[in-house]
Amino acid sequence: MTLTWTTNFPGIKTCTIGSNPQTLTGLAGANVKAQRLQKFEEASAHAPEIIVSQHTGKIILKMPIRKQEDIYGAGLKFHSIRNENNVVHLKADHYGGKDNGRTHAPVPFHVSSFGYGLLIDSPEPVSYYIGTPHRRDEKIKPVAQDRNTDDNWQAFNEPAYIEIAINADAATLVLFESNTLLETVQKFNLYCGGGTLPPRWGLGFWYRTPLRFSAEEVNRLVQKFKDNKFPLDVIGLEPGWQSNSYPCTYEWDQTRFADAEGFVQSLLKQGVRINLWENPYVAEKAKLYPQLEDKSGSHMVWCGIVPDYSMPEVRQIIQKQHDEDHVKIGVSGYKLDESDGYDSWLWPDHAEFPSGISGAAIRNAYGLLFQRLTAEIFHGHDKRTYGLTRSTNAGGVGMPYVLYNDCYDFDEYTTALCSCGFIGALWCPEVRNAKTASEWLRRFQMAALSPMAMLNAWADATEPWYYEEVAEQVREAIHLRQKLMPYLYTAFARYHFDGIPPFRALVMDFGDFMNETAGRAELDGTANPYQISTRKEITDQYMMGESIMVVIIKPGQTERDVILPPGKWYNFHTGAYAGCGEVIRITVGEKDPMPLFVKDGAVIPLQNGDEIQTVTFGDTPKGFTLYEDDGTSFGYERGEYQFREIK
Amino acid sequence: MTLTWTTNFPGIKTCTIGSNPQTLTGLAGANVKAQRLQKFEEASAHAPEIIVSQHTGKIILKMPIRKQEDIYGAGLKFHSIRNENNVVHLKADHYGGKDNGRTHAPVPFHVSSFGYGLLIDSPEPVSYYIGTPHRRDEKIKPVAQDRNTDDNWQAFNEPAYIEIAINADAATLVLFESNTLLETVQKFNLYCGGGTLPPRWGLGFWYRTPLRFSAEEVNRLVQKFKDNKFPLDVIGLEPGWQSNSYPCTYEWDQTRFADAEGFVQSLLKQGVRINLWENPYVAEKAKLYPQLEDKSGSHMVWCGIVPDYSMPEVRQIIQKQHDEDHVKIGVSGYKLDESDGYDSWLWPDHAEFPSGISGAAIRNAYGLLFQRLTAEIFHGHDKRTYGLTRSTNAGGVGMPYVLYNDCYDFDEYTTALCSCGFIGALWCPEVRNAKTASEWLRRFQMAALSPMAMLNAWADATEPWYYEEVAEQVREAIHLRQKLMPYLYTAFARYHFDGIPPFRALVMDFGDFMNETAGRAELDGTANPYQISTRKEITDQYMMGESIMVVIIKPGQTERDVILPPGKWYNFHTGAYAGCGEVIRITVGEKDPMPLFVKDGAVIPLQNGDEIQTVTFGDTPKGFTLYEDDGTSFGYERGEYQFREIK
Repeated sequence: MTLTWTTNFPGIKTCTIGSNPQTLTGLAGANVKAQRLQKFEEASAHAPEIIVSQHTGKIILKMPIRKQEDIYGAGLKFHSIRNENNVVHLKADHYGGKDNGRTHAPVPFHVSSFGYGLLIDSPEPVSYYIGTPHRRDEKIKPVAQDRNTDDNWQAFNEPAYIEIAINADAATLVLFESNTLLETVQKFNLYCGGGTLPPRWGLGFWYRTPLRFSAEEVNRLVQKFKDNKFPLDVIGLEPGWQSNSYPCTYEWDQTRFADAEGFVQSLLKQGVRINLWENPYVAEKAKLYPQLEDKSGSHMVWCGIVPDYSMPEVRQIIQKQHDEDHVKIGVSGYKLDESDGYDSWLWPDHAEFPSGISGAAIRNAYGLLFQRLTAEIFHGHDKRTYGLTRSTNAGGVGMPYVLYNDCYDFDEYTTALCSCGFIGALWCPEVRNAKTASEWLRRFQMAALSPMAMLNAWADATEPWYYEEVAEQVREAIHLRQKLMPYLYTAFARYHFDGIPPFRALVMDFGDFMNETAGRAELDGTANPYQISTRKEITDQYMMGESIMVVIIKPGQTERDVILPPGKWYNFHTGAYAGCGEVIRITVGEKDPMPLFVKDGAVIPLQNGDEIQTVTFGDTPKGFTLYEDDGTSFGYERGEYQFREIK
Repeated sequence: MTLTWTTNFPGIKTCTIGSNPQTLTGLAGANVKAQRLQKFEEASAHAPEIIVSQHTGKIILKMPIRKQEDIYGAGLKFHSIRNENNVVHLKADHYGGKDNGRTHAPVPFHVSSFGYGLLIDSPEPVSYYIGTPHRRDEKIKPVAQDRNTDDNWQAFNEPAYIEIAINADAATLVLFESNTLLETVQKFNLYCGGGTLPPRWGLGFWYRTPLRFSAEEVNRLVQKFKDNKFPLDVIGLEPGWQSNSYPCTYEWDQTRFADAEGFVQSLLKQGVRINLWENPYVAEKAKLYPQLEDKSGSHMVWCGIVPDYSMPEVRQIIQKQHDEDHVKIGVSGYKLDESDGYDSWLWPDHAEFPSGISGAAIRNAYGLLFQRLTAEIFHGHDKRTYGLTRSTNAGGVGMPYVLYNDCYDFDEYTTALCSCGFIGALWCPEVRNAKTASEWLRRFQMAALSPMAMLNAWADATEPWYYEEVAEQVREAIHLRQKLMPYLYTAFARYHFDGIPPFRALVMDFGDFMNETAGRAELDGTANPYQISTRKEITDQYMMGESIMVVIIKPGQTERDVILPPGKWYNFHTGAYAGCGEVIRITVGEKDPMPLFVKDGAVIPLQNGDEIQTVTFGDTPKGFTLYEDDGTSFGYERGEYQFREIK
């Protein structure tokens, strides 16, 4: 079988196998950023030959992995950003402790360190076999090792091939070829519509209230934030604001919120926006129910119907109600919960939906469709929104949502933050609680250097000043984010206009300069019976915007090695020269801010009241191109913005 | 779609959907125990109506779960034996920490506490949705809860239905109806050929040597066992005995075993049998390779070919070599490794095999086929074998193999031991190492009260007297097993002739008398955001044979509650009356044996040298039916055995 490719933009080709396959980008309603894509130079890197076959109802792709080539992407990951001898069966699900493809963002896009990427633009299940056992008929075979005699025996061979199995008889492929890994990611992001540009307030401080909070309790809490002089931009309401949760009515609970509009408007006047939690499953007692009942899937979730959100008329029914009851009275956005998993309460793959989409496909796209549904309401009002979603997929890069979950491992959150950069997603390392003041502070600081700075008190009723001994430092972390607003906002503009992720693993800017093994793997009959050793990778340092590198300090940590990629680096907090393409040891006071290092020549714009000040690093400042617009409307889509050079 | 059932035996019906589906029992070469099955009384319990449909290449079955009905089985489990709101996608794999269906024994058989069981006799992937979200069109709907107002809100509804999705267009179903859960399991076991009856030596003590042990090192070790007066029945050789491991040659390594036959025979003379580790993947340098190359799958594992063991001629090729090189020189059996997973080194589901069997189906049956291949060699010599396998499936109940894995959690091992009883499998809670003397002793004691008493020193080079302070108690644990041999051997005979599992969860003999919740579930934003509470179940007590209940003491534990099911119970070690249908508190000295409780009236035969003595419990001994045969041949298949009443 031969693939027939159509070149759409420089270095971007598409190909359709079978007839009329659904696409993720289509379900997302993504608008290709065509003009920007036309501007890329011809690609110097090329994808390897892709061999295609079809059998047992599947499309099978096979392509070589070349010497020294690394593969990133293929879904959101929590343990490792690089795919090393990895098999992932992508499926929208709550992350269950393994990077096996069941994840909040099962994005079927892989990207190579050699400068190509491949999107399987299909909502159907896709499995990736990256560098795993080779085929018997291959010409170049890895050399068999012998555990008897070879002290370096390992379970894995040198990676030789990627195989991709698409569980469908039709699919669209999009191939990106460019010059670097980053450029490939940019093209992918722009093909999917360009990154989201949040309203300015969305980059402020978020607080989610405990379960079943009332209007009165929220008002008291807002006063507490004022008393504590703690920034507050968004209040998120958790289950309890609706007249029924699990499943949902989407209607205000009259006992807790007798005057919803008055409540929302009064907060707006104080500069605080309201974000509403919801899940996609509609309760029988909802006004919407009769209109949606026969437009829903065969199975129910928490006794709620599962609307077929792939049907435009279904989205319109919900949009109308949401607009009337929430958006028109001033609600700023949503937290879209429960679109991910688990298997035990979502519908089975064999569930049937009225549009004819398969149960497996709509599960992979459900978070995307739920985002689209809500985002369109705000777009209709020329008002930006920003919120949270438990799942997304390819095509969702322009959706004004960040991902979150129930896990809470510190390291996994930093890895997820880095991993998201490869797949057009954003991660919120939300703060919930902490066992120590040190953990509280380090979590706050990480959140303040992420796509969304949020304390989620839904189950713990924690408040920012929970640990008095670090309350000042927590406040400082959020103040730093406020100061960095012009810089951060510009980073998001670059995400939107150029496809550059605002938060990036170092490998994306600097390539892999860490090509070493994390020590010889020791035999351990229980913990490592196959003597698997993995290569080092950096996920506790990442780029934020153009020139700032964040270095994560873990709870209780007081010193660590910092890898300074090639080029000179300066300490953001002190301005001191730090090093150049080397590993340095730093010590960190237990209440110090997260270390930030800045590239040589960088000019960083800082907000100071209504003023923008700049701070420069190194001897020859290179200037900064500051992005500016009204911060709340979609005027930027109509050209109402500017990129301004500052020195 | 309507199912057409054929009644084969009292309470056993079969039904075939589609044309000529492969069956697990067929791949296993299982011989239905027809005569014994004819003897069952008519069943009083009936299965609920099974509704069948076919779409998107799947067969979908649906049946109600009735009030108070519990569902067991549906694959081997490590966390919980009962399926409560559970989804499992059965696939042969190394257990990865979750009971999600990826397991060493993906047996597609579920059994109800109401006395029916259903076997999906197909090697293709099967998913079970047990008590999970119901369908929109059901007549009886669970009542929607409201998290806003209901303090008892839980994520799960009352279980209402089981749905089973078979990923194939043809399959054979076997329905078992009987009077009790145990009887249903018996019928399932007998339908699959009846349980294995190990040679007597197989129930002795096993020791697996460290990697790359030589003949000389084994001989020194055997002497050490003698010096320490420690029983030793089987020595297992791990990777190193073959001329190549990972992949395998199955040929003796001449540097370590220059005279294999002499070595094996000399040990046999000392009463010690040799068991050989191997995996199913054939190295290029193996003599067998040229004959098997074109009869193998499209993909390779550890650079070895993956023979299509579903083809009889492939099995014969290996059998011939194994017979010549191992069995004929006196080798007693095998440890069949690596037939289970992981995805990252086995073949993908889309791999192709020369017989036409799908990559997914042969993976589910690979352990079964590998067992069959080796078991048949011994059967051909009228010699019993006993060994280990990393995976099995339905149809494997008569295979002379026990399951094991790389995990090492104490609680998971006891749960697995209980879980195996529902699915026609046996679990080996092998000892490897221990952090404390207490752990060392408790692990040994558990192993001594299990289907196989083994120390596996392959990676740790531990020896039974590793912790001197408990060396005597460890020896006692194995001596107790030796004393119980007539009792245990009879239990296995009952497994073979009547299908009664020798190791059983209490629920199998006594029903569920523990129908309470393990406390109200507390909300925890990270650990239990859905407030899931589970019902209690007993997996740290189990029945061994007809009348002994084993009570597991964990490392470090000095007291615990013991649940005494209805009827009087006596302490095995002291003979004292313990209680009757109640919960008692016991204290256990740190070096005490595992508590054993015996049913009222039980007569337990004990081996004492060449004599069999008996010990009776309670006032009116009910006698014991002792099984006797030659202990090594298949004479029992030709009627050469006796069940003898002893008082």
